[in-house]
Amino acid sequence: MKNIIKQAVLTSPLNFQFLSQREINVLKKNENSEIYDIFRSCALAVLCIDEESDDPDFLRNTYTDFDINIIQTNRGVKLELLNAPSLSFVDGQIIQGVKEHVFAVMRDVLHVHDKTNNDNLSFSGTENITNSVFDILRNTNVFVPGKEPNLIVCWGGHSINEEEYDYSKKVGYHLGLRGMDICTGCGMGAMKGPMKGAVIAHEKIRHSESRFVGLSEPGIIAAESPNPIVNNLIIMPDIEKRLEAFVRISHGIVVFPGGAGTAEELLYLIGILLHPDNSDIDFPVIISGPESSKSFILQLDDFIRSTIGEEGCSKYKISFDPEETARYMLEGTQKIHSARSKIDEAFYFNWGLKINKEFQIPFPIDHDVIRNLKIHLDLPKHELAANLRRLFSVIVAGNIKPDGVKAVREHGPFLLNCDEAIVDKLDELLKSFVSQHRMKLPSNIGYTPCYKLLK
Amino acid sequence: MKNIIKQAVLTSPLNFQFLSQREINVLKKNENSEIYDIFRSCALAVLCIDEESDDPDFLRNTYTDFDINIIQTNRGVKLELLNAPSLSFVDGQIIQGVKEHVFAVMRDVLHVHDKTNNDNLSFSGTENITNSVFDILRNTNVFVPGKEPNLIVCWGGHSINEEEYDYSKKVGYHLGLRGMDICTGCGMGAMKGPMKGAVIAHEKIRHSESRFVGLSEPGIIAAESPNPIVNNLIIMPDIEKRLEAFVRISHGIVVFPGGAGTAEELLYLIGILLHPDNSDIDFPVIISGPESSKSFILQLDDFIRSTIGEEGCSKYKISFDPEETARYMLEGTQKIHSARSKIDEAFYFNWGLKINKEFQIPFPIDHDVIRNLKIHLDLPKHELAANLRRLFSVIVAGNIKPDGVKAVREHGPFLLNCDEAIVDKLDELLKSFVSQHRMKLPSNIGYTPCYKLLK
Amino acid sequence: MKNIIKQAVLTSPLNFQFLSQREINVLKKNENSEIYDIFRSCALAVLCIDEESDDPDFLRNTYTDFDINIIQTNRGVKLELLNAPSLSFVDGQIIQGVKEHVFAVMRDVLHVHDKTNNDNLSFSGTENITNSVFDILRNTNVFVPGKEPNLIVCWGGHSINEEEYDYSKKVGYHLGLRGMDICTGCGMGAMKGPMKGAVIAHEKIRHSESRFVGLSEPGIIAAESPNPIVNNLIIMPDIEKRLEAFVRISHGIVVFPGGAGTAEELLYLIGILLHPDNSDIDFPVIISGPESSKSFILQLDDFIRSTIGEEGCSKYKISFDPEETARYMLEGTQKIHSARSKIDEAFYFNWGLKINKEFQIPFPIDHDVIRNLKIHLDLPKHELAANLRRLFSVIVAGNIKPDGVKAVREHGPFLLNCDEAIVDKLDELLKSFVSQHRMKLPSNIGYTPCYKLLK
Amino acid sequence: MKNIIKQAVLTSPLNFQFLSQREINVLKKNENSEIYDIFRSCALAVLCIDEESDDPDFLRNTYTDFDINIIQTNRGVKLELLNAPSLSFVDGQIIQGVKEHVFAVMRDVLHVHDKTNNDNLSFSGTENITNSVFDILRNTNVFVPGKEPNLIVCWGGHSINEEEYDYSKKVGYHLGLRGMDICTGCGMGAMKGPMKGAVIAHEKIRHSESRFVGLSEPGIIAAESPNPIVNNLIIMPDIEKRLEAFVRISHGIVVFPGGAGTAEELLYLIGILLHPDNSDIDFPVIISGPESSKSFILQLDDFIRSTIGEEGCSKYKISFDPEETARYMLEGTQKIHSARSKIDEAFYFNWGLKINKEFQIPFPIDHDVIRNLKIHLDLPKHELAANLRRLFSVIVAGNIKPDGVKAVREHGPFLLNCDEAIVDKLDELLKSFVSQHRMKLPSNIGYTPCYKLLK
Repeated sequence: MKNIIKQAVLTSPLNFQFLSQREINVLKKNENSEIYDIFRSCALAVLCIDEESDDPDFLRNTYTDFDINIIQTNRGVKLELLNAPSLSFVDGQIIQGVKEHVFAVMRDVLHVHDKTNNDNLSFSGTENITNSVFDILRNTNVFVPGKEPNLIVCWGGHSINEEEYDYSKKVGYHLGLRGMDICTGCGMGAMKGPMKGAVIAHEKIRHSESRFVGLSEPGIIAAESPNPIVNNLIIMPDIEKRLEAFVRISHGIVVFPGGAGTAEELLYLIGILLHPDNSDIDFPVIISGPESSKSFILQLDDFIRSTIGEEGCSKYKISFDPEETARYMLEGTQKIHSARSKIDEAFYFNWGLKINKEFQIPFPIDHDVIRNLKIHLDLPKHELAANLRRLFSVIVAGNIKPDGVKAVREHGPFLLNCDEAIVDKLDELLKSFVSQHRMKLPSNIGYTPCYKLLK
Repeated sequence: MKNIIKQAVLTSPLNFQFLSQREINVLKKNENSEIYDIFRSCALAVLCIDEESDDPDFLRNTYTDFDINIIQTNRGVKLELLNAPSLSFVDGQIIQGVKEHVFAVMRDVLHVHDKTNNDNLSFSGTENITNSVFDILRNTNVFVPGKEPNLIVCWGGHSINEEEYDYSKKVGYHLGLRGMDICTGCGMGAMKGPMKGAVIAHEKIRHSESRFVGLSEPGIIAAESPNPIVNNLIIMPDIEKRLEAFVRISHGIVVFPGGAGTAEELLYLIGILLHPDNSDIDFPVIISGPESSKSFILQLDDFIRSTIGEEGCSKYKISFDPEETARYMLEGTQKIHSARSKIDEAFYFNWGLKINKEFQIPFPIDHDVIRNLKIHLDLPKHELAANLRRLFSVIVAGNIKPDGVKAVREHGPFLLNCDEAIVDKLDELLKSFVSQHRMKLPSNIGYTPCYKLLK
Repeated sequence: MKNIIKQAVLTSPLNFQFLSQREINVLKKNENSEIYDIFRSCALAVLCIDEESDDPDFLRNTYTDFDINIIQTNRGVKLELLNAPSLSFVDGQIIQGVKEHVFAVMRDVLHVHDKTNNDNLSFSGTENITNSVFDILRNTNVFVPGKEPNLIVCWGGHSINEEEYDYSKKVGYHLGLRGMDICTGCGMGAMKGPMKGAVIAHEKIRHSESRFVGLSEPGIIAAESPNPIVNNLIIMPDIEKRLEAFVRISHGIVVFPGGAGTAEELLYLIGILLHPDNSDIDFPVIISGPESSKSFILQLDDFIRSTIGEEGCSKYKISFDPEETARYMLEGTQKIHSARSKIDEAFYFNWGLKINKEFQIPFPIDHDVIRNLKIHLDLPKHELAANLRRLFSVIVAGNIKPDGVKAVREHGPFLLNCDEAIVDKLDELLKSFVSQHRMKLPSNIGYTPCYKLLK
Repeated sequence: MKNIIKQAVLTSPLNFQFLSQREINVLKKNENSEIYDIFRSCALAVLCIDEESDDPDFLRNTYTDFDINIIQTNRGVKLELLNAPSLSFVDGQIIQGVKEHVFAVMRDVLHVHDKTNNDNLSFSGTENITNSVFDILRNTNVFVPGKEPNLIVCWGGHSINEEEYDYSKKVGYHLGLRGMDICTGCGMGAMKGPMKGAVIAHEKIRHSESRFVGLSEPGIIAAESPNPIVNNLIIMPDIEKRLEAFVRISHGIVVFPGGAGTAEELLYLIGILLHPDNSDIDFPVIISGPESSKSFILQLDDFIRSTIGEEGCSKYKISFDPEETARYMLEGTQKIHSARSKIDEAFYFNWGLKINKEFQIPFPIDHDVIRNLKIHLDLPKHELAANLRRLFSVIVAGNIKPDGVKAVREHGPFLLNCDEAIVDKLDELLKSFVSQHRMKLPSNIGYTPCYKLLK
């Protein structure tokens, strides 16, 4: 049974006050139903904290009569919620953090809509994409004047086991003790643990301007509702812009255990760092987990060594100790500080990183396109990493996402133009994901690979 | 002899930190010379505080080797000045207020350029113009969350006499004692006096977040360099957008003695307030000056009564007492507070005011167009006011502005399609402007009217 | 093995900057060895975070060569630590929260010394004691301008079981979600749990000015080192002043399971609330614990009912639900708000509460005095409560504190002038304390009562 | 005719919130009439801004029914004013700055009362006096963490001519442009001008935490009501403590033209700086005035040269240029910064300055004592300066203060044990004070010296 709040009016937090008539009209229900739908569904997602379902359609089907209206007032704007889930209300009052998330959704949906519809340059071409990613981020005030490099991204699965969760809290605590701020992709598990640990540590070191950045996008926010600890929620337009945001604003990345999605992120990162233009760029990456997850982490490491090779493995470090992990990140940020100071490069956005267009735009889930994707050991390393990343994107889709699952059902498994040695390693890795429950399968039927080697 | 500072590097104030590569490129000298020229000339203007010349070309011709370069750094952007006038430097250090003005110029030139070039809707149509005026203002942070109505615009001449200047200081002092913030068009005289008075008063009442707003535009900033007391300098794209900004963000207007420009502003205001759609809108306007300026003020009042009639005069009050003037403004803001609260209308931007398109776009200085301008007593009052405002715009141009003066020299005086009674009153008014030195004539040859009645 | 930092110099936080020559001299090692000793031993205690020993002498005996020196500088004062325990250092840097505690110790030791030595009125007479408690608290800035009633004291044992600890975190979380601030007596267990829960909740509701108040005194701080989350550590001169501080600054008290010390605190509270002058004063008290601690809580409740009677039990509520506990406290603070508003009584200090002198000064551990303590069911209820509180104070001393244990060893058990029915209930209660490990006995020999009924 | 406000209740500013019952009782009318009288008369003085009378008795005799009551409330304390002068009210609302002054009076009267009555050490002995001066200042928050040396004292007459007043404004402006804060003795003239100038300059350089310190004492505050620009009003216990406060908290002193009082202050300063122990201490002093006051300034300089000699003159510089004056002060503060940094001496209080007891306690106006005051050219220079300072104190009293005037009337002129050469120079100087209206005489009868040479 669902509990709802029939009506609630949210006054805007200070930094979301002022909208033009044009903007208010854009968000109105009748004016522009597509934008309104995104606005409504993202708002619904952020209101569903601690909702346990992983099914992205669950919210849509449960809170069918949820509605959100924007109202102009003499001191700014207000949002009226109708039939909102009661999960984020305490004694009838909305939790302030959740309220800020609703307004953050409003801010970003508006801004991206404006860029997409009224701006001629927005997302055309590599440079424009990067400038637009910058512009969306700047508009959220995530860049803070005078801040030294201290923003650590934490990646990893959202359905990790309890030991891994406690471990991620400890990493967050030790990062926090060293004054690091945390950025994640929102959601539970490895996304939430580090923030909880860091909150306690920040209190102890009186780190009063903590940034807990959550980077999401309309397609996944329903499955990964942001924790209210997140104090800067940012809704990027799609997954690729979100990945670019992660690597450009952060000063180091901790990868916790996870599933195919985490592997995709790791390959994205390795692919970029292996680009020859980036060879001089220091960027600390660490794969970190408790001793009990050692075999899993070593298997992932082995997969990368067997495919991309030692050069790929040289881009990250492995650790099983929270304090060591935190110290490695701290040292990494200090190196970034000194390297960027030398060339007067910005601390708050990594302009210097070369990101090729294939990392900036989505890879289509299309049997023909996939068949033409070359995955061979003799490719240049960064190309191989790029194509492996695409492959994992295909695997996630083929196993989990509605469109991918449907394509496989209709046209059979994707045919891969791939070295046999790679496929063998892949099979092995995926089976262990499944056996360790790191891969959520849509139903309780067993796992079947969604691909086949093209002979 | 001019004094210059050979080189100075300005670090950005906190709120002007973060620019994208695209924006930095726009401001570079070689990339986009038109934008760069505007940027450079506005920056030069704000560096010339207390420069006494009124000649808009003076700066251009004096500081020919002045240059400004933008530099990206790890903590934001910096601006390098070469051969800058030393007027705004104290012991080699730039006055902080002036530095902020230079960065404000950067901010607004960029923003307007972006709107004009990349945004499809920007300045097309009445509603888009208003939304864009709003957007430019919002981007300057002139809207402050939670502020109650308290922003008073002060208009008037910049070459007023000493008694009028002292009077304007007193008005500012009494406004300041009542917690009013001040907005002017920048420059000397009636633009500076009220701010100086208000600064002292704000110190006494511990009004810690004083807003001293200066609204300028690229065409006039050279002649009216902002006083460094201005703590929010805004460069609007042109005169009409600037006038709209004045009336939409303020909660009352004090008109001090001035010349033809002041008359134009007053007619703009009366024209808008007379629009039938605005008949319910309370907006306090007061013409205020010392006893010694009484005859001048009464003559101006008489001109309006004789042309637009009693209804026009009903839109303003006249006062010769600083405290009464301040109290009238305070009461006016209280009425606005209560009126807008009733309908939940915004305090920070007067969306409700109807401004017709003829007030939003420039009136061309063209003999043919001017001949078709109808100035007759039997027109609807708000149309007559609109056209009289245009007429004053023509007069200012024909007497002072290079283009207008040239047009008159080449094609003779502008022919006016105007009632004789109006022309007579106009002659009288302009002669008194001249005899009281309220109208700056370009050379020291005597005054000749730049218009003739069309018979 | 102990880890030490050979030398560390602490710059003062902003609010502990300015000392006079007289004050600096007072704190110097040679000038005033008694004050210096208190200063040094309290400083040592706050540096020993997470030290597990409960033995108050442990620190003294371990860090024998620890030293602390005060240094005057041009921007304030600094403290030099020699051979400090490394527990509160991260990568060689002291945790900011711990640093603040060291300076808080400095502040309070100085202030109390000044009051005791140079002030003629300080601790003489009931009113002067209350005024001095107020003055010590004010000097710590624990009173915050404009704060509404929201400070909840959490009492309870510091060696509670894991279930009770998790429960106390949840209570803290739900208090925090409702904007409550937390005050405890420092130390582990029920003192730390509520703060950790509240920190997370405050982050979620953006409660930016959290107060985590720790009230300690020189005699117990070594055994109950404050958690660095405490952001206002206050060292009161002795236990009775500390208890008075608890009840006067807080707006409600949650009592978690604990041992004899917790029982003493509860009886102190009941004794005061039963005073006829306080009958009109609303003050929410709740005994709260997990279902698994139910029998313990009911036994405590039964003891109070059997001795003081229903009237004593009417002064508190019992709950086994964290959210209900938090809601009860919230409602209590709202009642306080409205009750004090009516009579314009201060929110930040409960001046109205009558506290008799017997609650303000220590009860001596002396066989003769104890024999004259009357503990009879026919006493007025608030006197009986006062005397029972003294009795528990005797029991704590006789079982745990060095002086008390020695007195019993030398002169035999304390003889009690007490009704037999009360002694029976007492025996029962203490036995269950022992069997549940709620009472720390100095050695591992079994428990023997330190008292005997006087016949 | 006087205008009064029948009743006004002032809520306390944030930093004056919390008083104990003891303190509230001290300030009540019936409890302690002497303290109440000081409280009431100082409060009345600060309410009389812009009151033109110089007669210290004027206020007392005019506002006979003025009353002030202290009220404890749930958010702090309030002050009720009955029959207060309306001078500091705008539209019925008290000017915030004046309100703060009333509460500052409350704070300091209470603090000094507590020191005098309850503290055993307070004002006994040179060191205790200095520690108490420090303690009173610290309690006002005039010491600001992290501030670099920038506090300039401005001395000079309060009835200077218009040219001197404008000059003092310009000096304040140029000090303000260089980030200097201002401290004066309150009142009009040279006390007000520099603050007005500095306010404008601080606005221009965005110096947001301006300190405008006013140092007064109960005996003179009625004659020198503080300007509401003063944002830290401090009431020292008497004239000598006030003088010590001036020299210990400031980092430079500008002496503007003034009368006998100004001469007394200058001699106090020279006397201290000449003390052999202070020979290494850099402290910038400048006598500064417009060209039109040149002859006056040179005469003062000549008097010092003729009496104390070149060594006395070496302790100050003379200037007739506001910018030069400001630059000299800036350089002086920089020297202080570097000198004190070397020895880690405090910036905020000049502990290192030796001030002998004769400068710390009042000199009695008593014919016998005065006759024993030795004023001879062969005395050590700093003793001669000390005695000359006492002599000017006698002259001020004998000409202006009620007690002194009465003593002269009853017992004849004071007999001076003084070199004839000195007396001649003194006669000359005083005559020029009188002729330039720098000395206020109580009635309009001519000036008669209040002293005679002892032969």
